[in-house]
Amino acid sequence: MAEAAPPRTVAIVLFEGFTVLDAYGPIQALGMAGQRHEDGSVQRFFKIVTVARTAGPVRSSEGPSTVADYSFADLPGCDLMLVPGGMGTRALINDAEFLGLLASLSKKSAMTTTVCTGAALLAKTGLLDGRSATSNKMAWDWVKQQGEAVDWVRKARWVDDGDIVTSSGVSAGTDMALAIIARLHGRDVAERTARGMEYVWNDNPANDPFV
Amino acid sequence: MAEAAPPRTVAIVLFEGFTVLDAYGPIQALGMAGQRHEDGSVQRFFKIVTVARTAGPVRSSEGPSTVADYSFADLPGCDLMLVPGGMGTRALINDAEFLGLLASLSKKSAMTTTVCTGAALLAKTGLLDGRSATSNKMAWDWVKQQGEAVDWVRKARWVDDGDIVTSSGVSAGTDMALAIIARLHGRDVAERTARGMEYVWNDNPANDPFV
Repeated sequence: MAEAAPPRTVAIVLFEGFTVLDAYGPIQALGMAGQRHEDGSVQRFFKIVTVARTAGPVRSSEGPSTVADYSFADLPGCDLMLVPGGMGTRALINDAEFLGLLASLSKKSAMTTTVCTGAALLAKTGLLDGRSATSNKMAWDWVKQQGEAVDWVRKARWVDDGDIVTSSGVSAGTDMALAIIARLHGRDVAERTARGMEYVWNDNPANDPFV
Repeated sequence: MAEAAPPRTVAIVLFEGFTVLDAYGPIQALGMAGQRHEDGSVQRFFKIVTVARTAGPVRSSEGPSTVADYSFADLPGCDLMLVPGGMGTRALINDAEFLGLLASLSKKSAMTTTVCTGAALLAKTGLLDGRSATSNKMAWDWVKQQGEAVDWVRKARWVDDGDIVTSSGVSAGTDMALAIIARLHGRDVAERTARGMEYVWNDNPANDPFV
């Protein structure tokens, strides 16, 4: 029997004032995606870790704190990274040290993903220049100002630009995560994951009801 | 000008192996529901706190840990409580001490809500006896066994039984939370909250695509 491939590591970036569902919709989808073997064992396809400027509790916009497992400096590496949005992005957009940590992790990660105003932070690093991207509609003008060389796509649930995938507001991150599961592990796995979440997957990136 | 009513306190119950979206879908909806005043200030309608057997980090099924702000003993009280599901319910279903803490908090809370297999824990306390309730479909038979005097409703996105509201699997909790916002603060507030989440609210409790 062939050895199972090790799970891909997904690093969720946390900062004071992140929006919880931007992070936890994708965490739910990626965290439960897997395969049940005949012996009853479950092989998970992704391992979720959390990273912030410093390890420890990070307070969200909505109240609850999530523990950052690692500081950026201590994170052993990752295959995917995800940058959520939230009111906390307003302070970080002018925080050169944080943007440097974000850019450095993105360059080492095979795939960088953002939800909501997380795209503004990635844009401000310059890594979205010349790339296609989207973000949420409520903060659209502010996000656009953070990257004038970005090809911003307004009508999109998410935009898949290869190693960078950006999504619209909050719940759109869940649809994007399922699309990434489909790309990496096949459509069946994504559909099974959505069913497991009792979630109606909007699987068409051009279907954006909130534009 | 009339004083704004104080926000209702929502206690999210955490335990080792809770499913993240069961908790964080409702946290997102309840945590952002509010009203922007003419002076630009935002009045939030709910304050989210977290509670567990002991205060401190609580590990989820999907990996990340959320900090419990309070132990059950130290929680000053709450208006709503929410019990998520997850694989962790399998151990707790036989944990008389935990079930006692849950029942005691539920009796003090004006409204008790559950997501997914959280209904199994509430059923096991006896507090669902003679009440209508639902749960997720993948663990249906196991959940039913925890409360044989419960009127289990299989085809339901959520069941509103007054001071007890139970929902189906994972994402159903978000639809239930929006319905609770509509009941307490009006449909406009719920719709605005869903739009802010870029979330397509399934607002019909009888529309259960996963039955």
